[in-house]
Amino acid sequence: MIIQLDPHISVEQREALSQQIKNIRYKTTHVKTQFGEYLIGVGKQEFDIRRIGSMPGIRDIHRVSDDYKLVSKKWKVEDTNIELGPGLHAGTGNFTLMAGPCSIEDESQVVAIINHLVANGVTLMRGGVYKPRSSPYSFRGLGLEGLQMWHHHAQAAGIKIITEVMMVEQIAPMADYIDIFQVGARNSQNFNLLDALGEVDKPVLLKRGMSGTIDELLQSAEYIFSHGNEKIMLCERGIRTYETAYRNTMDINAIAMLKEKTHLPVIADPSHGIGLRSLVGRVALASVMAGADGVIMEVHPTPEKAASDGQQTLNFQEAGRLYQGLRDAYELRRQLERHV
Amino acid sequence: MIIQLDPHISVEQREALSQQIKNIRYKTTHVKTQFGEYLIGVGKQEFDIRRIGSMPGIRDIHRVSDDYKLVSKKWKVEDTNIELGPGLHAGTGNFTLMAGPCSIEDESQVVAIINHLVANGVTLMRGGVYKPRSSPYSFRGLGLEGLQMWHHHAQAAGIKIITEVMMVEQIAPMADYIDIFQVGARNSQNFNLLDALGEVDKPVLLKRGMSGTIDELLQSAEYIFSHGNEKIMLCERGIRTYETAYRNTMDINAIAMLKEKTHLPVIADPSHGIGLRSLVGRVALASVMAGADGVIMEVHPTPEKAASDGQQTLNFQEAGRLYQGLRDAYELRRQLERHV
Amino acid sequence: MIIQLDPHISVEQREALSQQIKNIRYKTTHVKTQFGEYLIGVGKQEFDIRRIGSMPGIRDIHRVSDDYKLVSKKWKVEDTNIELGPGLHAGTGNFTLMAGPCSIEDESQVVAIINHLVANGVTLMRGGVYKPRSSPYSFRGLGLEGLQMWHHHAQAAGIKIITEVMMVEQIAPMADYIDIFQVGARNSQNFNLLDALGEVDKPVLLKRGMSGTIDELLQSAEYIFSHGNEKIMLCERGIRTYETAYRNTMDINAIAMLKEKTHLPVIADPSHGIGLRSLVGRVALASVMAGADGVIMEVHPTPEKAASDGQQTLNFQEAGRLYQGLRDAYELRRQLERHV
Amino acid sequence: MIIQLDPHISVEQREALSQQIKNIRYKTTHVKTQFGEYLIGVGKQEFDIRRIGSMPGIRDIHRVSDDYKLVSKKWKVEDTNIELGPGLHAGTGNFTLMAGPCSIEDESQVVAIINHLVANGVTLMRGGVYKPRSSPYSFRGLGLEGLQMWHHHAQAAGIKIITEVMMVEQIAPMADYIDIFQVGARNSQNFNLLDALGEVDKPVLLKRGMSGTIDELLQSAEYIFSHGNEKIMLCERGIRTYETAYRNTMDINAIAMLKEKTHLPVIADPSHGIGLRSLVGRVALASVMAGADGVIMEVHPTPEKAASDGQQTLNFQEAGRLYQGLRDAYELRRQLERHV
Repeated sequence: MIIQLDPHISVEQREALSQQIKNIRYKTTHVKTQFGEYLIGVGKQEFDIRRIGSMPGIRDIHRVSDDYKLVSKKWKVEDTNIELGPGLHAGTGNFTLMAGPCSIEDESQVVAIINHLVANGVTLMRGGVYKPRSSPYSFRGLGLEGLQMWHHHAQAAGIKIITEVMMVEQIAPMADYIDIFQVGARNSQNFNLLDALGEVDKPVLLKRGMSGTIDELLQSAEYIFSHGNEKIMLCERGIRTYETAYRNTMDINAIAMLKEKTHLPVIADPSHGIGLRSLVGRVALASVMAGADGVIMEVHPTPEKAASDGQQTLNFQEAGRLYQGLRDAYELRRQLERHV
Repeated sequence: MIIQLDPHISVEQREALSQQIKNIRYKTTHVKTQFGEYLIGVGKQEFDIRRIGSMPGIRDIHRVSDDYKLVSKKWKVEDTNIELGPGLHAGTGNFTLMAGPCSIEDESQVVAIINHLVANGVTLMRGGVYKPRSSPYSFRGLGLEGLQMWHHHAQAAGIKIITEVMMVEQIAPMADYIDIFQVGARNSQNFNLLDALGEVDKPVLLKRGMSGTIDELLQSAEYIFSHGNEKIMLCERGIRTYETAYRNTMDINAIAMLKEKTHLPVIADPSHGIGLRSLVGRVALASVMAGADGVIMEVHPTPEKAASDGQQTLNFQEAGRLYQGLRDAYELRRQLERHV
Repeated sequence: MIIQLDPHISVEQREALSQQIKNIRYKTTHVKTQFGEYLIGVGKQEFDIRRIGSMPGIRDIHRVSDDYKLVSKKWKVEDTNIELGPGLHAGTGNFTLMAGPCSIEDESQVVAIINHLVANGVTLMRGGVYKPRSSPYSFRGLGLEGLQMWHHHAQAAGIKIITEVMMVEQIAPMADYIDIFQVGARNSQNFNLLDALGEVDKPVLLKRGMSGTIDELLQSAEYIFSHGNEKIMLCERGIRTYETAYRNTMDINAIAMLKEKTHLPVIADPSHGIGLRSLVGRVALASVMAGADGVIMEVHPTPEKAASDGQQTLNFQEAGRLYQGLRDAYELRRQLERHV
Repeated sequence: MIIQLDPHISVEQREALSQQIKNIRYKTTHVKTQFGEYLIGVGKQEFDIRRIGSMPGIRDIHRVSDDYKLVSKKWKVEDTNIELGPGLHAGTGNFTLMAGPCSIEDESQVVAIINHLVANGVTLMRGGVYKPRSSPYSFRGLGLEGLQMWHHHAQAAGIKIITEVMMVEQIAPMADYIDIFQVGARNSQNFNLLDALGEVDKPVLLKRGMSGTIDELLQSAEYIFSHGNEKIMLCERGIRTYETAYRNTMDINAIAMLKEKTHLPVIADPSHGIGLRSLVGRVALASVMAGADGVIMEVHPTPEKAASDGQQTLNFQEAGRLYQGLRDAYELRRQLERHV
């Protein structure tokens, strides 16, 4: 049960509501976000929803049988549009492209990629400065200093930054230099990190876990939302299966299904989804057709020399062609949707 | 190593070739198909390929390092076009639509679907008369009698038939009434069945096993080809993963990769790929964008009353809209490919 | 619903029963096996089970909510013991060891292994004469001739033969030379083969599919049982997962759970379950502890020279030690079970 | 390459060594733990290992081709024994039992379980005070206060505490009240947490990720070791597969293989490994037979009323019987190992 409170609800009205909920023995969580105030009730008893819905101080009330509540389409039927920056939105009606290297490596790499993005009308740049690596002996990123250098150039060129945050302590220092926090697959159920990102007023791109279910992804998003941040994008980046011919198995079904289950924007990551440079384009196009609101992909001036993920990274020429193809595919999908 | 023989190779030339291969200690398999004659050599010794290639009676010779040989693109770079009937081809440049019910149920169902297909310009009808069912107590199909009834109506309407064959003994009696043999996921490594289908001059649609690898699928195709039948289409129909939100996980990566590994046409089965009626369309469109040469899908006059698979079957209106969307998506993909 | 009929049920009693079942609209399947006669009813209507149970000509009646019926423990609480030969049983209270090569290769190999088995008190020999191989260019076994040679030596030594059957046509010619038919993982849902094995009075060892579920395995067994053959053993041989460190992932849970769900004996195949010679022993011991009624394993005079599966095959010394360890583990498990 | 330094290595010797390594262009990481000082070198150039090994100030040197180094058996052939407390060790020759509830709930629960453990000679108690839960609306544990209460009773009874730590900030406040830090499956690749646990002189039980590979688990352990803490135990707790009959699929192969790959102790968690109360015992016994150095399991006075995981938790009577069975199985395994 989700009860959206009226911004002008009085103290007495709150108390009356509280009492009413106690009567039906629902356990409630109070949620206050940038955009609203909600009570989430969990319980089993049958009750007349109109009885609560008609109380003063309540904007609306919905039953939500899913394990997740605030991110469910059962509550909010209309798709959410998230403001990523002035005039820049993600969600239905907007096609969001994000591109950049796996790792931020140095100034010349950053500048080259920014120029490439500007030339292609892409306004969001991805890149890692804190890198989760299986081995402690691998390159773990340039850290905050690298981020500041990157920010300096990106800001000058009007490019927004999306980058991965790995732990709670990094949030505050990073906040001044980034536009979107990314939560990586390995942290998809790092609940303390999700809690903390709920308290920040920055968009979050939440990746599905390596073997996360649709339901777990949505519940992880619920952590962020219920801690106060409604600006969430979900990201399908391939799952782990028995097939070893590719790095991951892009789960196109997940894109289609997420668009049915949640009002949040869904972004596809074809680079990790297949992990093979020659096939990233096909998977990206397929993802758009399946319903993705955007694509995040890896691009590098010289993929074969990249510090990480070179095997799944496009060069500028390949990427440039793909951006256009993706926009065309998005247009076609929108047309087809209108006919339905 | 694949050696394609000249149709006019003489007995002496064969013997000389045989001797040459013995010298390098390769184990050979002799393959004769509708379209050619080949020697497949497997061995480890280094040798000068020109030495054999320049012998009289040999059309060409290729090294193929893959575990599969004749179905590999390393041998045959050009995509194969398969004749499914007069003027009807599958493979690059042709978009192949197949639709129909999970099970053939009765005459009125068959007639209704044929009318629907004709009205929508779809010339290939799928349907099961021998049904592999997990439980021995489930409906197992109408069998040969059902097929004959179906054939009667299909032929009159100019519709081709694709249907599943489950065992060697069924091949001969079915052959007169079908246009394409389908091998189901559970029989993807039923090698005796594959052997036998290699000896028939009918196209075969070979489905990937429930947890079959790309490599296993291609080796299963190699069984059919090496027993004499080059008319093979591969079918991606979703794999078994940990995710339980859908029946199977459509492996879009497989479509993209198969088009890179093999010259055979690749068909997508979105109905089994996701198993949810409301999402079949999105998955079908994505499959086309990923490179599929065609789509096979389930349609029924009244899906909610279907004898099997109703939950993943489209009705006529949904299907009609989707055919058009798929054709549009195919056109866009072809355009994008031309720009690459 | 399972109704076990009295052997002396009269024609009138059958008709009365038939009428009674029609009244509650259950669909029935008539099953006649070596050991009994049953009616399997599938339906949804509520009814008073005593009403049917008290009719003359009926031995007993049980509701079975599982998708499988005759193989369910909900019907038959006592574990089944299967006679494999005079004085040789599989099932609770008997520990069944089967060992032998992946492929039957030649006479000297067969004789050596038979001598090894006799010396170690192992009475069942496994070995393949029809080999399912991913590639058409691999060794596919010695066929019927190899089986006859093997049978000649085995019979002389008092050793029973278990070997894989791959297609319906092989059943009759093989029947004279084998003691147990094995159904391989790739044929676990080859329903026509299961049907046919239901009509033979020989024990069948049914392997779980490469990615078969517990439920599918039991339903496959139900095919055999419901076609007339109650002599079924189930075999856990590892499943396909994302982990590539071993050939398959032995599913120890399956052994424990099968013993809870079915009255049929459960055999473990640690050789395929892990696929690594140095670890086969540990997995075998674990399987016994989890509840396996027996173990089937690969042994060869010189594993490194075996025609197939050498990497997971024990030599005589390793195998000899393991047989003893397995017997000790079985004893301990039986003791622990008595204390429960 | 692992170079173990002599504790008395001089500054000049360090410099000479440094120079030598620079010459072969290896990238080195300096590691200082409770027990030793190491240089880990990663590089590709061939070199004469004796040349470095014979330098003064070096205790020994080993090539280690695995992706993990310090946790590899290629370096340290002898199994490691970890001191968990005075007179209490984990590792070969010691069988380690840990039992307790999923969640610490209240004082009476804690006292009851401690009494049960004492009565059964179990000295390590598990229990969660910080609980990772899929949903933000579920019970998330009693936190530090609960831990202090638990510690109070445990210490009085001579029981050691193992409990999960979820984030870096929790380490310091928890350290005074716990004996072993547990890293849960969801944090198996939370590298910042692993780094921080490397800087603590407390044993760490590291669980395998929900779909973690053997290799990833060992590399995660390498994080802890290379940051200074050698006291690591690995824990197999079941993986995520397509099979839905149980919560997870216990990977018995992993236990066998880990004992071959690493010198660290390996603990089995059968409660999560199968997730079904009636089968936990069988899986636990199997795990011991496969080579586990210990078992961690869930026990509760009244499992049906437990705040979490009740369906996989044993009551005192069941647990008591199982402890004894596990000790018997361990004895048998040790006997069998001696005969090998």
